[in-house]
Amino acid sequence: MTGPGQSHLSGSALGEHISEVVLIDQHMHGCWLTPGDRRRFENALNEANTEPLAAFDSGFDSQLGFALRAHCGPVLGLPEHVDPDGYWAHRSRFDEVELARRFLPAARVSNWLVDTGIGSDIAGVVELADLSGSAAHEVVRLEQVAEQAAQTSGDYAAAFEEILGHRAATAVGTKSILAYRGGFDGDLTEPSPGQVAAAAQRWREEGGVGLRDRILLRFGLHQALRLGMPMQLHVGLGDRDCDLHKTNPLYLLDFLRQSGDTPIVLLHCYPYEREAGYLAQAFNNVYVDCGLSVNHLGARAAAFLGRMLELAPFRKILYSSDGYGPAELHFLGARLWRNGIHRVLREFVDGGDWSGADAIRVVDLIARDNAARIYRV
Amino acid sequence: MTGPGQSHLSGSALGEHISEVVLIDQHMHGCWLTPGDRRRFENALNEANTEPLAAFDSGFDSQLGFALRAHCGPVLGLPEHVDPDGYWAHRSRFDEVELARRFLPAARVSNWLVDTGIGSDIAGVVELADLSGSAAHEVVRLEQVAEQAAQTSGDYAAAFEEILGHRAATAVGTKSILAYRGGFDGDLTEPSPGQVAAAAQRWREEGGVGLRDRILLRFGLHQALRLGMPMQLHVGLGDRDCDLHKTNPLYLLDFLRQSGDTPIVLLHCYPYEREAGYLAQAFNNVYVDCGLSVNHLGARAAAFLGRMLELAPFRKILYSSDGYGPAELHFLGARLWRNGIHRVLREFVDGGDWSGADAIRVVDLIARDNAARIYRV
Amino acid sequence: MTGPGQSHLSGSALGEHISEVVLIDQHMHGCWLTPGDRRRFENALNEANTEPLAAFDSGFDSQLGFALRAHCGPVLGLPEHVDPDGYWAHRSRFDEVELARRFLPAARVSNWLVDTGIGSDIAGVVELADLSGSAAHEVVRLEQVAEQAAQTSGDYAAAFEEILGHRAATAVGTKSILAYRGGFDGDLTEPSPGQVAAAAQRWREEGGVGLRDRILLRFGLHQALRLGMPMQLHVGLGDRDCDLHKTNPLYLLDFLRQSGDTPIVLLHCYPYEREAGYLAQAFNNVYVDCGLSVNHLGARAAAFLGRMLELAPFRKILYSSDGYGPAELHFLGARLWRNGIHRVLREFVDGGDWSGADAIRVVDLIARDNAARIYRV
Repeated sequence: MTGPGQSHLSGSALGEHISEVVLIDQHMHGCWLTPGDRRRFENALNEANTEPLAAFDSGFDSQLGFALRAHCGPVLGLPEHVDPDGYWAHRSRFDEVELARRFLPAARVSNWLVDTGIGSDIAGVVELADLSGSAAHEVVRLEQVAEQAAQTSGDYAAAFEEILGHRAATAVGTKSILAYRGGFDGDLTEPSPGQVAAAAQRWREEGGVGLRDRILLRFGLHQALRLGMPMQLHVGLGDRDCDLHKTNPLYLLDFLRQSGDTPIVLLHCYPYEREAGYLAQAFNNVYVDCGLSVNHLGARAAAFLGRMLELAPFRKILYSSDGYGPAELHFLGARLWRNGIHRVLREFVDGGDWSGADAIRVVDLIARDNAARIYRV
Repeated sequence: MTGPGQSHLSGSALGEHISEVVLIDQHMHGCWLTPGDRRRFENALNEANTEPLAAFDSGFDSQLGFALRAHCGPVLGLPEHVDPDGYWAHRSRFDEVELARRFLPAARVSNWLVDTGIGSDIAGVVELADLSGSAAHEVVRLEQVAEQAAQTSGDYAAAFEEILGHRAATAVGTKSILAYRGGFDGDLTEPSPGQVAAAAQRWREEGGVGLRDRILLRFGLHQALRLGMPMQLHVGLGDRDCDLHKTNPLYLLDFLRQSGDTPIVLLHCYPYEREAGYLAQAFNNVYVDCGLSVNHLGARAAAFLGRMLELAPFRKILYSSDGYGPAELHFLGARLWRNGIHRVLREFVDGGDWSGADAIRVVDLIARDNAARIYRV
Repeated sequence: MTGPGQSHLSGSALGEHISEVVLIDQHMHGCWLTPGDRRRFENALNEANTEPLAAFDSGFDSQLGFALRAHCGPVLGLPEHVDPDGYWAHRSRFDEVELARRFLPAARVSNWLVDTGIGSDIAGVVELADLSGSAAHEVVRLEQVAEQAAQTSGDYAAAFEEILGHRAATAVGTKSILAYRGGFDGDLTEPSPGQVAAAAQRWREEGGVGLRDRILLRFGLHQALRLGMPMQLHVGLGDRDCDLHKTNPLYLLDFLRQSGDTPIVLLHCYPYEREAGYLAQAFNNVYVDCGLSVNHLGARAAAFLGRMLELAPFRKILYSSDGYGPAELHFLGARLWRNGIHRVLREFVDGGDWSGADAIRVVDLIARDNAARIYRV
């Protein structure tokens, strides 16, 4: 496919290969299915701010907003860099399902790995497969399993284990948002059964939602480790409710030292991508991911991808979009990753450090082979 | 004006625009007015070192020193890259007032926002306006207000509030150097009146200078928040008296969560510019600034400006020089910013991520429009 | 010499100069002397992982592995980018001594400064001089001196001082791996004689190996300070046994404030090279080094060297390879440094920020003049 906006990559074997390679998007969420106004759309272009944008501001005036106008407009038949009003007006002619049917296939993704732990009125695993024409698989969010276990009346630990086992049977991995629930700094060893039971009782009495109890969070992590399937951890960049400095993945060192062979996937990573790359070199079971960051960095995505290609071994790096809400984001992640990795690797090849064949092989590893290996998709 | 050293920017609409745009320098100090020797000059080229430079070293052998020889020499009629001895010999033919009359206008700044909290024998607000032919406005340093309040005999809190209100009436913003007085790590909530009174009594008994009392520092910040005018915070890079790791702006998260609508401007930011950019995305009232860093990074200023253009929304980024002492620095900040932003944005445009019109609009936002909006100048 | 792989640097005075300049490698270890299998070789390409590499992985699939194939192959008569099997098969035709006799001279190093604190079956100071045809000098590891003192029967402090004095008489510097033995965070003042005696007794009773006692580590640092010869500190990037976040050199601020005139060399620095550069500006006696990092970053070494050239004054930056084990690494450090510094400085010159003569002078400072000054070699 030579699709809209692909022209920057033509003219070289490496560029053509990057343009064509079919991705595994190893971490994302559903796209919208229901109509919304411009305010919903612009707020979805800002990850960190949990308040409505200020009156003087616009979600379009950011790297993500500029990238969206540059790369998503053409998918809808607009010229590149169309102005925000023009983009919004044209986008409004489509409903969200139609938009998904355009943007999802344009991403050239064969497998979507869907974190189903947040959102309503968004596409689920089955709908994503239908809208995109590709396979979709579930990633189970551990804090959601905890809430489900809290709603049962029996022993919390047994309920957690049963629910997790049941959901994992049809899933490909787990995910934790410990980063949002106190961060990585502090004890992450496995709590005792007595500690778990006491903590679960307290939490149930408080309502059993929005898990922040450290004992139960630690319990969930260690249950997931036992499954052996990849465990994704939110790292770095998130909304302002998280204490970003407590999401430095180096605080995970003690946990990683006891994590055995279960693949641990460090998601997003910004601004800790170099620390994450170090961990991927230090531990056989640690992986790094570029999702969310690539979208929010837009024209600077290549700089970020370059930093990701410092210490992390090439069999330990994964692609994702972390798309959520506007279907543009599921496409844009792929588009920016293709453009960015091309700029970075072309420079390596032009500088004589890598051969062209090296570069093409690493593209395949990051685009899909590493994910196919650990998720077995 | 096609002034000295402008040639690198000619030949494109973007370059021409960047070359011509008139700046608001939203954070700087006075330039020297009195004569000094070469040692004073070379020490002024090093920000961090509070001791005299070692005998084996030279302030010229740094990015700032090289940038000064490259870009300031031509303003005085010297060739680019003139050697240090030649630069110093030629500079010595002018007095500091004559130097200011050359370098300040060459910066093409319409408004100087002057932190008057440090320095003697340097130009004040009125002199800066006179020397440059542009407008100049005061930024009130909170720790100086505290010292003034300590010197009164009445109630400290009332005195602080009165002095601050009086000075703020003719000023455009406030500034805190909390970074130098213990750092951001720790409680930054508002202290009680009783705590303030007790702390003020202790501090007055100790002499009431060099405020380091945490309670009084916190009191000052919250008083300034109430004014609603922009509050500047020194962040990152400073001299060796500051514990640089305690100036990571992420330690401000709890303070920012309670800071309301008052614009908070994170100054300098290096090496935490990416963390600062995250905060500018997360909070409607947080801004980032490039001053001081751009001068000290010289040839690497473009790399820094690129990192600043990652998460920070474009309506939240501000220009400053942080010039202090040699009038060269007030000019050099502008020159390096123009060169650096041009390299960064040209790459965005050449890569197809931004349109040329996008780039020109963002130049205007950072150069002056954002500052004009929040400082109302 | 226009050696293998030098072509990228030809065609300009700066490139020619960088290609020819003779280096002082101010921190490295011995190369192998005894035969080993492919597993030993591949594990030596990963710094951080203390376990055998996973079955799915290969030490060749990393920046270091790619750089080795690109730049070391030609020294052995192989084409650039030869595949891993081909590289290994060809390398196996040589014994380690023959490899050292090829790779060490190809680095164009006049002086090797050898940290003799680790490894057996590797070349010592005398053998390195013989194999390379250059001078070699010892750097004394303080934790090794501590173990030697612990094995004596007399007063620990007196024994430490005597052994250190004796070894330092023929050495050019000292080295500490405090980063691996608890990190920089915490008290680094000099302990009292009573504290030292008590701690030494405890440690001797425990066997007196693998020093982790904070009091004795602090004692060693302050003894070394008194010598006045340069003290090297491992900073940043190391194996997974170190808590990387506790090796942030900013935690050294209090120690540096009391370190006087003794040169303190911050080794490796990644990912804290910008923080290290700040310290080099803030303290007359602080230096930064690029060793280990340059090898492991491969095609990204230029990006790292660029970040090193931000705040650090040019008379405070040093070259090293940190080569250890495969003789390729002693050569590769030099090769990647030459390529990387060329890319960075050429950009400074092309951008008009530095003159070509500036660049050549800074090359000499980093390549050898700074090291010659502080180590007096």
